[in-house]
Amino acid sequence: MTHPETVNLEEKFGRFTEAWSPRIVGELNGQQVKLARFRGEFLWHAHEHEDELFLVVRGTMRMGFRDGDVLVREGEFLIVPRGVEHCPAAEGDETWVMLLEPASTVNTGTAGGERTVTDLERL
Amino acid sequence: MTHPETVNLEEKFGRFTEAWSPRIVGELNGQQVKLARFRGEFLWHAHEHEDELFLVVRGTMRMGFRDGDVLVREGEFLIVPRGVEHCPAAEGDETWVMLLEPASTVNTGTAGGERTVTDLERL
Repeated sequence: MTHPETVNLEEKFGRFTEAWSPRIVGELNGQQVKLARFRGEFLWHAHEHEDELFLVVRGTMRMGFRDGDVLVREGEFLIVPRGVEHCPAAEGDETWVMLLEPASTVNTGTAGGERTVTDLERL
Repeated sequence: MTHPETVNLEEKFGRFTEAWSPRIVGELNGQQVKLARFRGEFLWHAHEHEDELFLVVRGTMRMGFRDGDVLVREGEFLIVPRGVEHCPAAEGDETWVMLLEPASTVNTGTAGGERTVTDLERL
C-alpha cells in the first residue's frame, strides 16, 4: 500500500465557509473526524447512542448544558456523553471545531428539524 | 448531572515527562484519547484490529512506513489503518501527540517487547 495522507486542519477549514455544516476529514474504527465552523448558536439536542468529542482548533466554543455553560478554548476539548442535552455555540465571531463521533451521528441528534445536515461532504 | 470537564492539552502534557508512555485523557464510544511525548524513535509494529489517529499538538512527528516516511506537523493528523506497519518517531527533540484509538490498543501492537506499556495512567 501507499502510506496514508497527512490532514492539515487549517488547509481543510480553508475549503468551506458555511457554519454548522460539518465536513468529514477522516474515519477510523467506525468513528468519523469532522470539521465544523460555528457561528452564533446551534440548537438544544442530544444523541441517544453517541458520545461526541469537540476539540477547539481556533477561537472559543461555548457549550450550553442545562446546568450551565462551559467555555472551551483553543487547544482544549470536551466530551459530551450520549444522552446529555447540549447547545453548541461560538463565543465571539467564529469558532473552528474538530469533532470526533460515530459515523451514525446526526448533527441535530434527536431534535431533528431544518438544521439537520445529511450527506456530509468529504474533504 | 454536572456538566463534563474541559481538557486542556498543554496542562495535561505538563503533568508527565516520560517519552513513549501514553496517558489517558478521555474516553468515548469505546475509544480512548491519549497523550504521548515522542523522543527519538519507537519501534516497528502494527495493530491487528485497531486504526490509530495521531494529531500533532507540538513539534513534528516522523512516521515511518515500509514505503517511506511521512512528516506530520503541528495542526496536522495522520490515520494509520489497522494492519499497516509503522514506526513513530520525533523529528527534532520532542513531539507532543494526541492519539485516538480503541481502548483495546497496546502501544507496541503485535510486536510486544519491553517497550510495551500497560495500566496507563489517567490524567
